[in-house]
Amino acid sequence: MKLFIVSSLVATAGAWTLSPTRLASFSPTTTSGTSLSALKPGEKVTLIGVAADSGCGKSTFMRRLTNIFGGETVGPLGGGFDGGGWETNTLVSDQTTVICLDDFHANDREGRKVTKLTALNPKENDFDTMYQMLSDLKNGKTISKPIYNHVNGTLDTPETIEPTPIVIVEGLHPMYDSRVRDLLDFSLYLDISDEVKFAWKIQRDMEERGHSLESIQASIEARKPDFDAFIAPQKEFSDLTIQVLPTQLAEDDTKTLRVRMIQKEGVQDFSPCYLFDEGSEIDWKPCGKKLSCSFPGIQFKYGSDTFYGNDVSVIEMDGSFDNLQELVYVESHLSNTATKFYGELTQQMLKLADAPGSDNGTGFFQTLASFKIRELYEKRAAANKAKEKVAA
Amino acid sequence: MKLFIVSSLVATAGAWTLSPTRLASFSPTTTSGTSLSALKPGEKVTLIGVAADSGCGKSTFMRRLTNIFGGETVGPLGGGFDGGGWETNTLVSDQTTVICLDDFHANDREGRKVTKLTALNPKENDFDTMYQMLSDLKNGKTISKPIYNHVNGTLDTPETIEPTPIVIVEGLHPMYDSRVRDLLDFSLYLDISDEVKFAWKIQRDMEERGHSLESIQASIEARKPDFDAFIAPQKEFSDLTIQVLPTQLAEDDTKTLRVRMIQKEGVQDFSPCYLFDEGSEIDWKPCGKKLSCSFPGIQFKYGSDTFYGNDVSVIEMDGSFDNLQELVYVESHLSNTATKFYGELTQQMLKLADAPGSDNGTGFFQTLASFKIRELYEKRAAANKAKEKVAA
Repeated sequence: MKLFIVSSLVATAGAWTLSPTRLASFSPTTTSGTSLSALKPGEKVTLIGVAADSGCGKSTFMRRLTNIFGGETVGPLGGGFDGGGWETNTLVSDQTTVICLDDFHANDREGRKVTKLTALNPKENDFDTMYQMLSDLKNGKTISKPIYNHVNGTLDTPETIEPTPIVIVEGLHPMYDSRVRDLLDFSLYLDISDEVKFAWKIQRDMEERGHSLESIQASIEARKPDFDAFIAPQKEFSDLTIQVLPTQLAEDDTKTLRVRMIQKEGVQDFSPCYLFDEGSEIDWKPCGKKLSCSFPGIQFKYGSDTFYGNDVSVIEMDGSFDNLQELVYVESHLSNTATKFYGELTQQMLKLADAPGSDNGTGFFQTLASFKIRELYEKRAAANKAKEKVAA
Repeated sequence: MKLFIVSSLVATAGAWTLSPTRLASFSPTTTSGTSLSALKPGEKVTLIGVAADSGCGKSTFMRRLTNIFGGETVGPLGGGFDGGGWETNTLVSDQTTVICLDDFHANDREGRKVTKLTALNPKENDFDTMYQMLSDLKNGKTISKPIYNHVNGTLDTPETIEPTPIVIVEGLHPMYDSRVRDLLDFSLYLDISDEVKFAWKIQRDMEERGHSLESIQASIEARKPDFDAFIAPQKEFSDLTIQVLPTQLAEDDTKTLRVRMIQKEGVQDFSPCYLFDEGSEIDWKPCGKKLSCSFPGIQFKYGSDTFYGNDVSVIEMDGSFDNLQELVYVESHLSNTATKFYGELTQQMLKLADAPGSDNGTGFFQTLASFKIRELYEKRAAANKAKEKVAA
């Protein structure tokens, strides 16, 4: 059992280096359940949706997010390394529960062989149950949620989930069903362009797992129609989209990334982050003396745009950092970062310096997005408290 | 005599509207000479050189500059409207004397008909006398300076110039002769591109004075070889160059200007002004809600460059302002402006709102340059005072 969970963690955490310190952080305090993170009387659940394909750095993002909320104690709900746990997709930290929406798959892997549909197809997902359970959770009720076992593709014995102040639902369809969508307090979409997805899959599946280039290409092509039909259209509903594209600073460079944080305008309790001057259009090549970067350099952009019919403001970063310590220079030129002290963004990036994407816009904007979510949560919690007071 | 001086003022002031208030500002206090602006004991002269062709907005620039130093009392040295004065190119304000280097022409207009050389040719300028007199003035001596009469092209009876804290020498060759150049504490070059020069001349000489397009073109063409040979190369030595170019925001638009303030690096007591972040490369399209502008819009740029072999940093403005009141928004994003309080740059622009170029980069950067010169003067004066104290 022990080895089994370790391998599962390695898989979800991607290229994380599981140092002894990090292993130790899955402390016994969480093995007993969710007591640490249970809702206090009068407290409400803030429900966050994160849409993304598999292998898109979702797990790293979840870790960045829960790290900001939960401090050191982040681990799987059901067990830990001391045995006694079960295989689960749910992560809990001090205040947060992360639920994987794959748990609401309508059929197991064998069942999909019969229907001949992919898990991307809404028909393979039980939105009625998803809605009912998330609605219950949001209303402060404990639920008994199914588990989809990614290793053997089976639907396992349900697990008990207690409501926590923040519940994150991540998966393929958090914004597909309008009932589920309406439950969300805030929604994100990790939007990885086909070129980057392909480059990442090559690295993981070819270099690390020995698959052939053709089989990788074929598997991407096979998923693409369903992905475009059912997953991508959710971008219309995301309050914040992190778009990952190939660099524009050099030709044929598949490693360097251009990452855009696309922020919807007019979302309650969410004021978009901006660079230098709100409402302007800005191109910024940071000073080489203040920010180390190798070829092809670093470029930031900021401006207004429309995205799937919505007014948005966009911050973009193209390129990679050489020295994370210097990030505070970039941070100091951003406003509405929702940090609580000067340099908190940089500090957070340094804490998870080994995580994939920490040297580029994926890590940078995931961290920034996490602060924005913390801010939204705290605003909602404060408003709720104020309301309670008036009612009392 | 009265009418004569008025016409001369109108000519030097370009498109200035000489309202009664402004006429009144040439107060009798200056008619008695330069007593108001004479050097105090121990004070040194700061000598500023301004190179520019005629009809390039030099007079407006001088007015912006002396306005910052001298308050309201700006007028010609030798007279005023109450009679008793003579025709002069010299302007004085409270602390400033502006000397026109045309006064050091070697020959009068008749003489040049014999030599068949233009006034642009160094042979037509007496650099020995220029150097000697400016050197004397810089050493606190009163000089008797020749006068070149622009109206009838004669060399008139010399006038007495007493040293003042700031002496500005403006004309075609302030940086041509190395001895004169070495006397300068700071140097500027007003660099008007051929396209803009042509558009301006058409407006002035064709629309206002009835010259033909062909004659304007011919006169520009005739001057060009000497200009390129003797005037333009001085750009290498200018500490600050204001370059005026056609807009890049629209095609075939000869009215909208792109103006660049090119600031030499490493000049003592002169720290270049920058936009948002020193040492970076920035493109900024200001927020339309904060800064009104009509088509084709407004765009700022900031970055490093080389200019005539020197390292420079450049701020650029393309486009025109609709509402000068809103300028404080732009001002607030500039650093090292050498203003003494928030909004001083905007206030100064508003004071001279009717002056040519006040709605675009020419007025904006001329005003900014004036503040930088004031700063340099004050730093030098303070250092000089400190030195005097040590010596005493």
